[in-house]
Amino acid sequence: MKPDAFRLTRETYPVSVIVPARFRDLDTLGHLNNVALGSFYEEGRARLNRAAFPLEMRHESKLRMLIADGHIAYLAEAHYPGDIEVAAGVGHIGRSSYVIALALFQNGQCVGTCETVLVVTDETGAVEIPPGQRAALEGLRVKGG
Amino acid sequence: MKPDAFRLTRETYPVSVIVPARFRDLDTLGHLNNVALGSFYEEGRARLNRAAFPLEMRHESKLRMLIADGHIAYLAEAHYPGDIEVAAGVGHIGRSSYVIALALFQNGQCVGTCETVLVVTDETGAVEIPPGQRAALEGLRVKGG
Amino acid sequence: MKPDAFRLTRETYPVSVIVPARFRDLDTLGHLNNVALGSFYEEGRARLNRAAFPLEMRHESKLRMLIADGHIAYLAEAHYPGDIEVAAGVGHIGRSSYVIALALFQNGQCVGTCETVLVVTDETGAVEIPPGQRAALEGLRVKGG
Amino acid sequence: MKPDAFRLTRETYPVSVIVPARFRDLDTLGHLNNVALGSFYEEGRARLNRAAFPLEMRHESKLRMLIADGHIAYLAEAHYPGDIEVAAGVGHIGRSSYVIALALFQNGQCVGTCETVLVVTDETGAVEIPPGQRAALEGLRVKGG
Repeated sequence: MKPDAFRLTRETYPVSVIVPARFRDLDTLGHLNNVALGSFYEEGRARLNRAAFPLEMRHESKLRMLIADGHIAYLAEAHYPGDIEVAAGVGHIGRSSYVIALALFQNGQCVGTCETVLVVTDETGAVEIPPGQRAALEGLRVKGG
Repeated sequence: MKPDAFRLTRETYPVSVIVPARFRDLDTLGHLNNVALGSFYEEGRARLNRAAFPLEMRHESKLRMLIADGHIAYLAEAHYPGDIEVAAGVGHIGRSSYVIALALFQNGQCVGTCETVLVVTDETGAVEIPPGQRAALEGLRVKGG
Repeated sequence: MKPDAFRLTRETYPVSVIVPARFRDLDTLGHLNNVALGSFYEEGRARLNRAAFPLEMRHESKLRMLIADGHIAYLAEAHYPGDIEVAAGVGHIGRSSYVIALALFQNGQCVGTCETVLVVTDETGAVEIPPGQRAALEGLRVKGG
Repeated sequence: MKPDAFRLTRETYPVSVIVPARFRDLDTLGHLNNVALGSFYEEGRARLNRAAFPLEMRHESKLRMLIADGHIAYLAEAHYPGDIEVAAGVGHIGRSSYVIALALFQNGQCVGTCETVLVVTDETGAVEIPPGQRAALEGLRVKGG
């Protein structure tokens, strides 16, 4: 279950967003809570999805990208106060689903990685990824691996 | 990545807790947010860990159970208002780590499953699971599988 | 700023919901975090608003009840694990706004009170509370005070 | 309950921190949820308190600053994606308590204000604010008012 080495490197990921930790992310163990860390990965996914599926396009098409599967490796404790860099890129692209690969960096250290399978749906269920979105996802691939 | 059939059945899990959904668990998609769902699984783990590692014992021994790895399958959208039954049991038990297997049920349907690898640590790092805790974990095994 | 005595009594409030605390509600101080407590009060408001403004009615009328003002008195620390009883009732009712008065009880003790001013709006801004909703709110008044 | 005009101006507050909104801060109404907004104010308080009560000092003295009372005015809906500037300063300083006044700004607009009464405690209950901390709080006063 250990992440591949290329997943621990900042350069692997074409998309990135800085998310400062909040006091509310802490728990009684004094580190960033593992559930709270989920909201950092979500921020990377949202950033990547906004690049590939513009909001206006989603409203018109009623497309939703639903998470079907998620895996997180917790590599080191993350701390407050401090910034987390959330890095994201696209992995496997299927007919109606695609993988977003993510990593969290704090003070230059990779503190966790995440892979999420998303399924593109409309009101009828899973649908083929539209050509424009497929091309956009291709342009956001992780490097290496 | 699909969960095994036995994982979708309530009877598989010896531990259970009812967690009512909160309005704050919703997101703009109108369903229980996937990050918020993480706090339901956390509740199942907390319940199981309190049974195997009593709080007084933890304070004396300075033991912490840290999550090293987590995997979630999202099987159906979960809704508010409504109760979620969080069911939990122990899977593989290693020298210093063990697996908690979980499932969420809403209106009799399994809406998700989760496997989490926890590592028992003290201030020096990973330590062997104490005999009393190992016996307690053995008594909380999932059935089947 | 101290709440009136009648606000500390369970019998004051016609609406009530039990919300179990979650591990995620804790912070590094080891008590239920004050931001997290906000989600308990929100649960009481949601319960009361569903009684007075049925969801179908809201969808048809596009009415939203937006919070304009909130005040919380923190009377005692609240703890996990444990249930919180959230009690709610209606205070002052104006032309387009109304007050929801709330209290949190844990182990029979009132650990906090909250008053929230809500404004009924549609896409044009604040609107008069419809007669049916006004009557429903009148039926949910706090007792005493 | 409307905030005084000076409270709506950025220059009033000596302390400030930028907190980017997260997708998880949204709710089904499509705006930043009012409970989630609480975590923005908390961030301003944490920043101010770290300036006046250094962490090492707190650990030695076992001092805690507990919230006794909070009031929030919701002036406009806040949106995602986007940054929120949380601005904070000290209001009234009493024997064992002090007020932190806060405001949230998005795109140059004040979207909310908050006043919080904090009580300094140790294991025996409320204690006098130590002279060094009182001087630090005096140096972080809001301007005007």
